[in-house]
This record gives sequence, structure tokens and C-alpha cells, in this order.
Amino acid sequence: MSNPTAAMIVIGDEILSGRTRDSNMHHLAGQLTEVGIDLEEVRMIGDKRGTIIAAVQAMSGAYDYVFTSGGIGPTHDDITADCIAAAFGASIDVRDDARAILAEHYAKSGTELNAARLRMARIPEGATLIDNPVSAAPGFRLENVHVMAGVPSVFTAMVASVLPTLTGGAPLISKTMRIERGEGDIAGPLGDLAEAFPLLSMGSYPYQKDGSYGAHIVIRGNDADQIDSALARLEAAFS
Amino acid sequence: MSNPTAAMIVIGDEILSGRTRDSNMHHLAGQLTEVGIDLEEVRMIGDKRGTIIAAVQAMSGAYDYVFTSGGIGPTHDDITADCIAAAFGASIDVRDDARAILAEHYAKSGTELNAARLRMARIPEGATLIDNPVSAAPGFRLENVHVMAGVPSVFTAMVASVLPTLTGGAPLISKTMRIERGEGDIAGPLGDLAEAFPLLSMGSYPYQKDGSYGAHIVIRGNDADQIDSALARLEAAFS
Repeated sequence: MSNPTAAMIVIGDEILSGRTRDSNMHHLAGQLTEVGIDLEEVRMIGDKRGTIIAAVQAMSGAYDYVFTSGGIGPTHDDITADCIAAAFGASIDVRDDARAILAEHYAKSGTELNAARLRMARIPEGATLIDNPVSAAPGFRLENVHVMAGVPSVFTAMVASVLPTLTGGAPLISKTMRIERGEGDIAGPLGDLAEAFPLLSMGSYPYQKDGSYGAHIVIRGNDADQIDSALARLEAAFS
Repeated sequence: MSNPTAAMIVIGDEILSGRTRDSNMHHLAGQLTEVGIDLEEVRMIGDKRGTIIAAVQAMSGAYDYVFTSGGIGPTHDDITADCIAAAFGASIDVRDDARAILAEHYAKSGTELNAARLRMARIPEGATLIDNPVSAAPGFRLENVHVMAGVPSVFTAMVASVLPTLTGGAPLISKTMRIERGEGDIAGPLGDLAEAFPLLSMGSYPYQKDGSYGAHIVIRGNDADQIDSALARLEAAFS
């Protein structure tokens, strides 16, 4: 049985211009791997309505789970929630449950819940809220799309809220062996090994540090015994 | 006149599993912005033949320039060169010019140019080589697709080789103003400003540090005078 699949959409002009370095993708990738969900594709796109809608529709249909980051704040370029609604033909407006969360949060600090902040309570009809323990303004899930903030501390907290609601598969077991040989010497035996163990995935990641060099060979799969057998054969080939 | 557009394809299972944190996307994004090429989309995908071919075909047709990173080493999972050839219906084999580069490089260190290393001389028919001053094995350009290594030091060197061959547009001018107010207070005036200057792009990036908070407002465009006018108006709104 294969694992559930996932895709991520990273939304924001600031990522594509190089102003901001995305870190949410790497965080989500590691979290999904731990629970046995295979992240198969990531798209990074700008704050453009047509582009966001098209990406959401394409990826929602192709994968079991979709996760977005970015574009749900209070400013004019925060258009993700409206695009998600449009992608599914859902209506969108300020929703009472989200407004109540914001009202309570801002009341504590004596901050006015003005029109801009109220934008963050715009939630598509039929969506389920995602908890934001950092700064209150919620994310949401509509169909299989989980809409989360771009600010890394908020994104991380929202992922933690969402993970227990997902159905994972067999977590990927991953073992690494370091071989102090050029990748070109490793490639032949490693290719033979990959053919002998078709259910395992094998990758070679070269390193070079302080004058020594070699590669980390990573063997991944769901069957620990097979991984150990493969590692033993690899060790024998280079001893 | 609008700028040339670009897309990037980051190839590698190790990125999607969270084992490796990609840094090439951020580097390329900054470099393209400097020369006035608009990076509009990035896709991160695994080492799967069908997926790579489909992404290359879709993005090569949609954007002026495409850049790939990853999958051109000597091991069995390095399938990018063959996929690029397949995407354009080009034949691929070990090419004499690429073989000569590798032969010279490995002769210096007395390393055998074995079958695995020779894989790195597999270049599609009609492609132009991209110089690799770090570890010799070349990248290549076929049609509008620039195929580069995943190892960051090599990717960076290849981008430096490629940049002078690209036709850039008007470099984006970007100015930032820090406003020590909550994003929800900034959003209203900023939205009005964005409407008044439709040719400029304005983004708001909140920060929170050592108890103080606010947002960096970034105004981008090709016309320095317009940017200065917008900044002056923004400053007046919050003084």
C-alpha cells in the first residue's frame, strides 16, 4: 500500500524576488516524512489571483493533501483566502467564529479591530479553522487544502495543529552510510544495489570538507530488514 | 515594456523528504532580480522521469528562461540530462567535448574516468555546455532550459557563467521603509497607496523582535521617482 501524497504551494512575491528566504517548505517536508505522507511537489508562486487559483485547483485534484503558506495577513496583497474560495466556488466573508477569535485577542492588548484586521476573519464557507496559538488570526482547511500563514513561527505552529488531523502512512525509514570515496567510484556498485532492491530508494549526496571528500549514501524505504541487508552489501562492496 | 520571465525546477527526492534544505532557489532569485528577469514560478519535484519531463515541457513553453538544479551527477538517480533530451525529442549520448573536459580534470588527480563518471558527459544533441569551474563536469543549455548542478557551490558557479548570456530587462528598484506600527494599522493607508500607484508593487513584511514590532514596507518598481513619491506619501501618513 502506498502512502498518502501531498503538495505544497508557497505564495509570495517576496520569495520569488529573493528578498525573503523560504523556510516553511523544509519544515513541512520533514514533518510529513515523519508521519508517512509523501510530499511530491512544491510550487512557489507570486501574489497573483489567476496563478494561485490555477495552482490550487491543479494540486487539490492531483494529491491527497495540499498545504499553502503565505498571503493571509491584513494587507492588500494578502489574497490567498479569496483565491481558495474562488478555486472551489465557495462564498467568502467575515465569519463570526473567526471574528470572535480576533476580537478576544485584540481586546487583550487594547488594539482596535479595524477593517484591515477584520480581513483576517474572511473565511470561505464550509472551511474548518486552523488554530494559531502565536498571533490568533486563524488558518483554515477547505476540502483537502490547508491554508496557513507565511510567517515561519506561525506556520510551524499551524502545522503542529494540523498534523494530528491527517492520516499518515508507513513512516519512511532512512539510514545513511558515509563512504570516503569519490561519487564516481560509488556510482557503479550503488546502481547495482538499487536494481537488486527495487522497493528501496537510494540517493548519493557528495560532501567535501577540510580536504577529505566522499558521499553520504541514503537508503530509504518502509522495510527495516531490507534496508539493513542493502547496507550490509554496500559496506562489503567498499571495505 | 515588461521584463523577461523565468521559472526554476529544483529536482531531487532529498529536497522533498526534508533531508536537504534547498538554497539554490534563493540564490537564483536574487541574481535574476538584479539583472531584471522576473522569476515567476518555482517547482520542486522528485527524481521521477515522467514528472521531470512534464515540468520541463510546461515551463519551457510558458517562460522565457528556465533553470534547473540537481540530478546531473554520476549516480543511477541522476536522470535530469536524459529527461531534458526526452522533453525536446533530442538524442543524448556521451559527447566528445564534455568527455575531453572530464578526461583532463580526472587525469590531473590520477582518478579513473570510469563508466559512472562518463555519465556526466552525456549531453543532448544541440545543447551548449555550461562551464563548471568547481568540479569540471559541465551543465548545459538546450533551447531555453539551463541545466545546472544541485551542489550549491557548483550551482552558484554555473549561474555566474550563465548570467552574462541572458538578456535582462529593467532591474527592479526596491526600497524599504520600517514602520513601527502593527500591520493592521498599516494595511489601510498602504492599500490606498497601492491603488494610487498601480505600476508599483508594495509588500508588507511584519517583524517582531526584542519586544518591539512593526513591518517592513517594500516598494518595488522600475521608476525611481515614482517609488520616492510613494515613500514620501507613506512617511507622511505615519508621522
